[in-house]
Amino acid sequence: MTEFIPPGTQFVDLPSPFPMKRGDALHAARMAFETWGKLDSSRGNAILILTGLSPNAHAAANEGNPEAGWWEAMLGPGKPIDTDRWFVICVNTLGSCKGSTGPASIDPATGEQYRLAFPDLSIEDAARAAHAVIESLGIERLACVIGNSMGGMMALAYLALHPGRARSHINVSGSARALPFSIAIRSLQREAIRLDPNWNHGSYDDERYPDNGMRIARKLGVVTYRSAMEWDGRFGRVRLDSECREDDPFGLEFEVERYLAGHAQRFVRQFDPNCYLYLSRSMDWFDLAEYTDGDVMKALASIKLEKALSIGVRTDILFPLQQQEQIADGLRAGGAETEFAPLESPQGHDAFLVDFARFGPVISGFLARL
Amino acid sequence: MTEFIPPGTQFVDLPSPFPMKRGDALHAARMAFETWGKLDSSRGNAILILTGLSPNAHAAANEGNPEAGWWEAMLGPGKPIDTDRWFVICVNTLGSCKGSTGPASIDPATGEQYRLAFPDLSIEDAARAAHAVIESLGIERLACVIGNSMGGMMALAYLALHPGRARSHINVSGSARALPFSIAIRSLQREAIRLDPNWNHGSYDDERYPDNGMRIARKLGVVTYRSAMEWDGRFGRVRLDSECREDDPFGLEFEVERYLAGHAQRFVRQFDPNCYLYLSRSMDWFDLAEYTDGDVMKALASIKLEKALSIGVRTDILFPLQQQEQIADGLRAGGAETEFAPLESPQGHDAFLVDFARFGPVISGFLARL
Repeated sequence: MTEFIPPGTQFVDLPSPFPMKRGDALHAARMAFETWGKLDSSRGNAILILTGLSPNAHAAANEGNPEAGWWEAMLGPGKPIDTDRWFVICVNTLGSCKGSTGPASIDPATGEQYRLAFPDLSIEDAARAAHAVIESLGIERLACVIGNSMGGMMALAYLALHPGRARSHINVSGSARALPFSIAIRSLQREAIRLDPNWNHGSYDDERYPDNGMRIARKLGVVTYRSAMEWDGRFGRVRLDSECREDDPFGLEFEVERYLAGHAQRFVRQFDPNCYLYLSRSMDWFDLAEYTDGDVMKALASIKLEKALSIGVRTDILFPLQQQEQIADGLRAGGAETEFAPLESPQGHDAFLVDFARFGPVISGFLARL
Repeated sequence: MTEFIPPGTQFVDLPSPFPMKRGDALHAARMAFETWGKLDSSRGNAILILTGLSPNAHAAANEGNPEAGWWEAMLGPGKPIDTDRWFVICVNTLGSCKGSTGPASIDPATGEQYRLAFPDLSIEDAARAAHAVIESLGIERLACVIGNSMGGMMALAYLALHPGRARSHINVSGSARALPFSIAIRSLQREAIRLDPNWNHGSYDDERYPDNGMRIARKLGVVTYRSAMEWDGRFGRVRLDSECREDDPFGLEFEVERYLAGHAQRFVRQFDPNCYLYLSRSMDWFDLAEYTDGDVMKALASIKLEKALSIGVRTDILFPLQQQEQIADGLRAGGAETEFAPLESPQGHDAFLVDFARFGPVISGFLARL
């Protein structure tokens, strides 16, 4: 398994050793990132974007890579995150396989891929690694930390671990702690990968690769990333043209099944299975309440910001709306001028990747008032 | 794989051949059922219960089997379905492995288990087979057909296929057609079973048995049968006492994972995998609108009843509440005096199996007015 590094990616070395929250340390590790816009002379116009589980650092086209990025509609000159005004940094998460060091990277101690020898990865490690990128750019204080989904967890960890280093925060479909429904879903995804004989305790290669486990994991992911309401309108009971029933009596028959199969096919060989396991588990472990005496609200209120925006979607079953409301309530209790934006997008958890008509104005409005 | 037939089960032979909706026919097939109470001289006090995917016909203790049944709290003398007044029949679904003929039964043509040679199974076949049980008991007109979950689909098929044969209907967390979210979930469950090398295109035995596929399927089922809200309160982030992390770095860690594992363990060897595949697919295929020109409401309105009750649960993600509201609206449009009961149970789709405080009074009230 190789890493998937887009052209134009920049790198910065992490301090070595880089101690990890649950013990052990990384040596000679690096972080991948990309930037847009120009850092102004006061270094006060920097925005950090922390991503969901699978994206790379290429959030949008830039000089190093003119290809469209995963948040192309949101980021660029004149767009909601306006790169004429802001200097934007997007970081590939520590533990991922898209440039930053992770289980698919070479362990300098052995010259082989880490695989399961990679130390236990926590959301907090990923947040500290992202901060190392910001430090390397000489940025003392971020104008805003934006975190989507898993990135919303990382952003809260970032703010808790680095007080005073950000003026504001936008939390997009994030959560201050993992709850049992999402833990159950992720546990099941990991189990499907681990049960695949080709996973082989992490020692797979391109010939013997856990395609089946990754396919189940991804399909289950997509089911929980979208919403029943969206699919009723989008797929209904539409059947595929050719059923091919004779060869495979339980094979694909409905359009929604083909949609899932297509998503899985695009993912299975584009994301390293061990990295997936590590990142998935890091979300289950995350609980901001660890920074107080188990009280999430108190932990959120201990984060000091000028302004905050928490956005959620009513149809999100994976990071349900009450989790974004909790973030808003907690940050407001900490003194931040806070806006809570519950959106009516039908697309569920993934709405921030598609429903730009709703997300764009909320984010651009917040940044305009900054 | 053997069948799982509780003691005291009664049997009735199906007409032979018994033609199936999608072609082919069963020969020398039989139906398993149990009864409670006494049929009165006018034969007017009979209630038929059609079950969800996995239950047997043993809904409650009776003379043949004093063990508690799967709906013990709902059914018996003085209970919401009062067997002092009603003669109650519960049928094991055609295609199941708990007494009625299904893919795990012996094919008389070969002397071997049907396995994948079992004909395509539709909800309508199961409804017609249940009707054969009612005919064999000399019951001309049922006082009520009660259907839970998949049984709610079967009940609607029963009513559509046998006009005038029931006075009333209670639909519990059912649906008039499968929608894409639930199709996606079931498709994924079937894929997990089919991917297990031990499934072996349906030719497994006790030594080589698709435990892994069945475990994933069942866990995913349980995730969709309950609700995030219930689990937040029930499990929160409680961890298991002993983590045993060294042996299995991605093993069970949270209480919710152990809960799922326990459910799976109780199911995997107690339900035949091929039967599971057939019953699961029959739900995806079900669309009451086939009986009109594709209009579900028209199909529901063509069902003629004196009274109807449709019960749903707000936290149900698998058969969402709007589906039970649709059933109520459609049956009302057909002239039935109809009650729609949206319940606030936190337990999701499975609430009817546990939340007797809410379900009991609604059902007993309806039956009292019959």
